[in-house]
Amino acid sequence: MVYVLHYAPDNASLIVRMTLEEMGVPYTTALVDRAARAQDGAAYREINPVGLIPALETPHGVMFETAAILLWLADTHGQMAPAPGSPQRARFLSMVFFVSNTVHAQLRMLFYPAKYVGDDAQAQDRLRAQLTAPDDGAMTLPGALRVVDDHIGTHTAPTAPSILDCYMAAIVRWCALYPAGLTTWFDLTAYPALSQMARQLDTRPAAQAVARAEGLGPTPFSNPVLPTPPEGSAT
Amino acid sequence: MVYVLHYAPDNASLIVRMTLEEMGVPYTTALVDRAARAQDGAAYREINPVGLIPALETPHGVMFETAAILLWLADTHGQMAPAPGSPQRARFLSMVFFVSNTVHAQLRMLFYPAKYVGDDAQAQDRLRAQLTAPDDGAMTLPGALRVVDDHIGTHTAPTAPSILDCYMAAIVRWCALYPAGLTTWFDLTAYPALSQMARQLDTRPAAQAVARAEGLGPTPFSNPVLPTPPEGSAT
Repeated sequence: MVYVLHYAPDNASLIVRMTLEEMGVPYTTALVDRAARAQDGAAYREINPVGLIPALETPHGVMFETAAILLWLADTHGQMAPAPGSPQRARFLSMVFFVSNTVHAQLRMLFYPAKYVGDDAQAQDRLRAQLTAPDDGAMTLPGALRVVDDHIGTHTAPTAPSILDCYMAAIVRWCALYPAGLTTWFDLTAYPALSQMARQLDTRPAAQAVARAEGLGPTPFSNPVLPTPPEGSAT
Repeated sequence: MVYVLHYAPDNASLIVRMTLEEMGVPYTTALVDRAARAQDGAAYREINPVGLIPALETPHGVMFETAAILLWLADTHGQMAPAPGSPQRARFLSMVFFVSNTVHAQLRMLFYPAKYVGDDAQAQDRLRAQLTAPDDGAMTLPGALRVVDDHIGTHTAPTAPSILDCYMAAIVRWCALYPAGLTTWFDLTAYPALSQMARQLDTRPAAQAVARAEGLGPTPFSNPVLPTPPEGSAT
């Protein structure tokens, strides 16, 4: 069975697509039409009970949660993550969960503040200001990114990216682009390891294939522009 | 080497302790003195760069992130989770990440709203009201708990709990107790599978050992009371 990735351009599905391309594993895609709010419809809820993008159809059933899919793919194909039992696995898992439940979760709050504090503009501004405040030790985005930068910086330049690299490449892309007009808090060059990693990933055939498929431009991670996807809508 | 669990009573370390007890794996504990804000001090930051409790010292270095520790322990000791490659692994990983980055993350916001929206009482109330609003499809605590309840309900009563069961047992405990006076949104009986699982776990020697060590009372998960720990402070 060939994997089926349920995706929308420049959504978290991008991370899974990049990983599948790097692994050289066959897959097809099924567009989730965000413009029609298909992710909230009954058909997509049958696939993913939490209604988020991505979902991946596998021989072992449908998976959801970006990081779960990444880790499962890495373990299933023996690529792009330290194997279970290897000494590097312990800290690697800590970082994958930290990125998933802190960095990625904070970004969702930054992009969709109404889901957390309702329609009050002042409350939304307050939430966004707090999320992007200067480093207070991992509890804001700048602090959390520093923790990940420190971790990635402990490794020499890898010959091939890990699932964590793919995850962080998309995250630094989104920090630079979204919400449009509210990105001045972010400066990729403040994170030297992430900055170098984004530049390296941009040169890989996998990144170029994903960028063509989703309209992400020539330097999707290190110097991104807003997407012009050939199908579907990012929002 | 014996594991060292850095813990505070009734903190997320409780989930790791319960798991270690269920596995019958030797460990010692090191109290993090929350009353003195030790988790923010330089000594603890050396152990855990994100300053959260728990951390676990392992032969492969210090781990942090509750779910990362749980999954690593399960894979290392071949207990309490579907093994990599098994057909049940895919959906199990999806649920573990969902609990970590949605359910657990939402609880942190409910308990510590000032970290997200500052000291404004109205903004805190708004955040809490939205988090505990009736099920809107996984984006509030009642909806997210229903997703997990549906998943756990698909399995027959296990002979031994999984890491996901231990994780959810602590979560339903906290929903019933915290923030004190603001728990009326939560009714364990609305989640039949979680309710049955909490009752089962309460009877296990592992739960009783943890309850004694942290002062959690005779029914820590199905009918909890505020802790009276023999050492340390929950907050």
